[in-house]
Amino acid sequence: TLGVVHLVGAGPGDAELITMRGLRLLRSADVVVYDQLVGAELLTYARPDARLVCVGKHGHGAFTPQQDIDALLIAEARAGRRVVRLKGGDPFVFGRGGEEMAALRAAGVRCEVVPGVSSAVAAPAAAGIPLTHRALASGFAVVTGHECGEGTRLDWSALARVPTLVVLMGLRALPNIVGRLAAHGLDLDTPAAVVSRGTLPDQRVVTGTLATIADLAAAADLAQPATLVIGEVVRLRDAGRLTTGQR
Amino acid sequence: TLGVVHLVGAGPGDAELITMRGLRLLRSADVVVYDQLVGAELLTYARPDARLVCVGKHGHGAFTPQQDIDALLIAEARAGRRVVRLKGGDPFVFGRGGEEMAALRAAGVRCEVVPGVSSAVAAPAAAGIPLTHRALASGFAVVTGHECGEGTRLDWSALARVPTLVVLMGLRALPNIVGRLAAHGLDLDTPAAVVSRGTLPDQRVVTGTLATIADLAAAADLAQPATLVIGEVVRLRDAGRLTTGQR
Repeated sequence: TLGVVHLVGAGPGDAELITMRGLRLLRSADVVVYDQLVGAELLTYARPDARLVCVGKHGHGAFTPQQDIDALLIAEARAGRRVVRLKGGDPFVFGRGGEEMAALRAAGVRCEVVPGVSSAVAAPAAAGIPLTHRALASGFAVVTGHECGEGTRLDWSALARVPTLVVLMGLRALPNIVGRLAAHGLDLDTPAAVVSRGTLPDQRVVTGTLATIADLAAAADLAQPATLVIGEVVRLRDAGRLTTGQR
Repeated sequence: TLGVVHLVGAGPGDAELITMRGLRLLRSADVVVYDQLVGAELLTYARPDARLVCVGKHGHGAFTPQQDIDALLIAEARAGRRVVRLKGGDPFVFGRGGEEMAALRAAGVRCEVVPGVSSAVAAPAAAGIPLTHRALASGFAVVTGHECGEGTRLDWSALARVPTLVVLMGLRALPNIVGRLAAHGLDLDTPAAVVSRGTLPDQRVVTGTLATIADLAAAADLAQPATLVIGEVVRLRDAGRLTTGQR
């Protein structure tokens, strides 16, 4: 039999936000290779005899080197197994899915991508913040906090001028982000929010402005992962409460 | 009994790309209010006795005015019914979900948002194009083609400088988009792709460059909806073939 690797988006945190297709593949997989961001509840859907392999923490300390992950996926597929590579959010949004796809293709291994609900959209939504709005925002940009430190390659002048800016894993670099956007002319009164553990039962949201959000987030001692949203759309949350993401 | 409106993302086209939670709510809804972009297959999951209401074509000719949709949702919820408002992609990404949420809240109607897989991510993925890549793109921006015509409020100077630009419903405005990006300095050799009917069985993909994509897309006579991707990540598709989104 010929093996296959499915790159599957696990969604933003709430296990029920995986796609039907992702769940079906997870249920039938021989091997599940998953990131730390994937919730334990989702793994209970795997077959009792499936091999489960955690390949480490995302954005923290220890993690499995990418080449080791690639080698594992290739070896399991070549042994004829059905492999699900389960990634938090969407595999192609800062998920290194492109790299794994390229490595698998180069090795002649069949590879299929199953998109997932990205935290970039879902975490703000779970906080009652739409990324776009007819009157307030006609588009949005998404970057990762890992690219916001020293040696950033992002064009901050451009990012300071998009209607809504979303920063995934944006908690640690928050002071950097605020400083760069302000230096490029973004108004200090621009509304901002940090959504900690969006869609999960322990979700927390802190809102403020570009001027205040870093201090407010630090004072709140928010847990990872966290999604930062900057733009007028944040005001829509403050207009009232919204039930979402809870069962 | 107290009614409720669930704003549910139906996903990018392939019915299997709805979330578990979205499907569960769809199956139990008394009333399903859906857009034209929602596939017929998904509606077969509704209860046989559920009331199904189509509120018109998205981006084409006739459609139900937004205030009529709001009034329908409010009336059904106030009658104690469980309403699913099913929207193509994600409700908060150019889905007018923010407006409907605000209208429902103002009317005192309980409202819950269930995020969906956005075509902005899934259509490129189904064509083998990751939106981000460690070497090629450290972020992306998403806009809608409906905002790219005369009277555009978008900052094209900023959009010309994001690593990856995605334009939803970008087919009709393609010549405008190309012209504006080129006028703001984006290299004419920048790779570009149009993904027509992404994730659906009749998906088609045309690739070229900023200089050629408008003519190539016109010659291919692509069907709506179509997602435009501009950036170096498009090269990753041309590196080989990828199976995705098909059952």
